[in-house]
Amino acid sequence: MKSAIERHLTAVPHTLANAARAAHYGHQGAVLWLTGLSASGKSSLAMALEQSLMAQGYSCYVLDGDNLRHGLNANLGFSPADRAENIRRVGELAALFADAGLICITAFISPYRADRALARQACRSEFHEIHLAAELAVCESRDPKGLYRQARAGQLPEFTGIDAPYEAPSAPQLRLDTGTESLEQSLEQLVTYVQRQLPLNRPR
Amino acid sequence: MKSAIERHLTAVPHTLANAARAAHYGHQGAVLWLTGLSASGKSSLAMALEQSLMAQGYSCYVLDGDNLRHGLNANLGFSPADRAENIRRVGELAALFADAGLICITAFISPYRADRALARQACRSEFHEIHLAAELAVCESRDPKGLYRQARAGQLPEFTGIDAPYEAPSAPQLRLDTGTESLEQSLEQLVTYVQRQLPLNRPR
Repeated sequence: MKSAIERHLTAVPHTLANAARAAHYGHQGAVLWLTGLSASGKSSLAMALEQSLMAQGYSCYVLDGDNLRHGLNANLGFSPADRAENIRRVGELAALFADAGLICITAFISPYRADRALARQACRSEFHEIHLAAELAVCESRDPKGLYRQARAGQLPEFTGIDAPYEAPSAPQLRLDTGTESLEQSLEQLVTYVQRQLPLNRPR
Repeated sequence: MKSAIERHLTAVPHTLANAARAAHYGHQGAVLWLTGLSASGKSSLAMALEQSLMAQGYSCYVLDGDNLRHGLNANLGFSPADRAENIRRVGELAALFADAGLICITAFISPYRADRALARQACRSEFHEIHLAAELAVCESRDPKGLYRQARAGQLPEFTGIDAPYEAPSAPQLRLDTGTESLEQSLEQLVTYVQRQLPLNRPR
């Protein structure tokens, strides 16, 4: 049942149309949604991509799980419901950054297809799903934070890839084999992809 | 004032420092936090300010109560706890936009000092509190959505200014008398304020 105030809420359209924002920044706003297992390279690739794109003149921002957990999502835990709400908020947030005209790069495991579909749905701009497809064995052998080791020891229940599923995208816009490629190789492919899909009208 | 690193000890630092973002956009990132009663002119002024600033070359984005309630905050109602969470999320969100390098203009009643203080605390960039100080009688006589009428009739409990308090800022960075001034007059003051406080290094 909607309250009286809720019935009055109609979305106020921004005075600045998308076209004006695209002219301002020199490119369309968009979400680049990186998904993959823990240690598949999401945060490193996101940060490197942001740096490369901004050097070319793109306006970007990275949303990162570790960062958001301290602020917007500080009141969420790791229960299934809280994990879903975490990704829902990231999806809405990314949609706002893209609506603002920026290229928003998100770096979250986001293991469930349904959650990623919701993020795509929230986005009124272009949404690009990018699968960092490093295999579990590779990610587990890297284990930079020792999380897989803890999960195998039963200290991190419902850890993606160990005792919780990772639902790989069936038709991502781009698939990067971050298990065998170097960061530089993956970055190059990703930059080329962005340059094609979101061309810069006003290069530096 | 604590640095970003001190306040978020384990947060992943963005590869791009604030200085690089300021060079990219031509100005510092910041939050312009508009606060005032319902019908004090927050959304209209926010949208007009965004349009004016972007025409000058600033990169901006407006966060608006009506808009956010449909997305990020769609799962919040109007209980005191949900209202506080609403403003908490807006504060964190605005902080992220400012961190990205943009000027984020927020347009929320945000009636409680404590909530506004939290938003300021969340912000690692400049935070400017701007009080749209139209008096209750003026706002109520405008009543563009008929909300005050409903509140007086007891159909909108805990309506700010009627049966819930509005705690006016004691020391806002700027106070605009939106009750007696025209939108154009308030806008001119606000634009002048921004040009002084957040000068553009690279005007159009």
